[in-house]
Amino acid sequence: MSGVNPQGVQVSAFRAPSTEELAHDFLWRSVQRLPARGKIGIFNRSHYEEVLVVRVHPELLAAQHLPDEAQKGIWKRRYREINDWERYLVDNGIRIVKLFLNVSWEEQRERFLARIDEPEKNWKFTAADVRERAHWDDYQKAYGEMLSNTSTRWAPWYVLPGDHKWFERIAAAAIIANALIDINPYYPTASAEVRNELEQARRELLAEPKKKR
Amino acid sequence: MSGVNPQGVQVSAFRAPSTEELAHDFLWRSVQRLPARGKIGIFNRSHYEEVLVVRVHPELLAAQHLPDEAQKGIWKRRYREINDWERYLVDNGIRIVKLFLNVSWEEQRERFLARIDEPEKNWKFTAADVRERAHWDDYQKAYGEMLSNTSTRWAPWYVLPGDHKWFERIAAAAIIANALIDINPYYPTASAEVRNELEQARRELLAEPKKKR
Repeated sequence: MSGVNPQGVQVSAFRAPSTEELAHDFLWRSVQRLPARGKIGIFNRSHYEEVLVVRVHPELLAAQHLPDEAQKGIWKRRYREINDWERYLVDNGIRIVKLFLNVSWEEQRERFLARIDEPEKNWKFTAADVRERAHWDDYQKAYGEMLSNTSTRWAPWYVLPGDHKWFERIAAAAIIANALIDINPYYPTASAEVRNELEQARRELLAEPKKKR
Repeated sequence: MSGVNPQGVQVSAFRAPSTEELAHDFLWRSVQRLPARGKIGIFNRSHYEEVLVVRVHPELLAAQHLPDEAQKGIWKRRYREINDWERYLVDNGIRIVKLFLNVSWEEQRERFLARIDEPEKNWKFTAADVRERAHWDDYQKAYGEMLSNTSTRWAPWYVLPGDHKWFERIAAAAIIANALIDINPYYPTASAEVRNELEQARRELLAEPKKKR
């Protein structure tokens, strides 16, 4: 999104939740970072972590201090809660574009090795990334269920082939451009009342005496 | 700042304070919008509104519900409070660049007329803008005192001639580029310990069996 005026864009990266975030419901921190009307909000990761990393590591769910009865059938309910929240947003004029960048087992390995070998990329990599890779198959299962259960009429998922960055980027750009064209933004037009005020302001400005210096 | 990756930039516009903001001290809303470490925050207007619009319209000060004794010698104190807060930020590793875009009486008139005449600019203009212009001389006085009292060693003001946008923009870009060069950002370098972890991760990745499909 570089090239877009940062005045209209806000990027939120979602990492491991803070103590304060864990003390709230799982959607709370996403609500906090919603863009205001007229703005574009980019979520780098999102509320979907709840049905991915939390699902693969059930001990993270325990840290949420949910009441016992809220833990029954949790994943089916999480999908419904996400779908309901997203429908609420869409019904209230917020456009949601969900991109899933799908990277293969082999390509992830290459990228990790590059992050190890190139000093300028070291900061992007932690040993935890390799530990997480041990759960690859669990993640694939969680991705599949997530996509099946949360690709809705009002907020469909776009799955992009991440191994080929050039294609992934063209596809992502096309999807976003298409959404913006569909939203069809325009300059607000002045009402008759505002027009009158503008005319009055023009008369005042034109009648102004010159300022002495 | 378009051209900068929005991942690292966050723009905050300060309008008339909300009821919640008025219920707090005047610096509170600026504190809320400070950029995190490593990020650039752009304040479009700022905590300086307190010694500009609030000074020109003392009734706005009354809306802050300050204790009586806090209202004595308020402007001198406000300058000191701003300077102290900015010094605190600078001492804690935050770089402050303050740009004052100075537009002349005649040029403001031309810009207002353009906003009235060009429908695509109508939204930028309200009748309140002309009412505020009636206080021009009071604002000039407030600007002058603000600049004299809050241009500090740790956070100097740059006053830019706003009538010539091309020059103003070159000057602003040079000041910002200079600050960034001075900050001298670099990629974090891995410690010996982290290097060891990276080596271990590399061995694990290279020893991995192929995945069956």
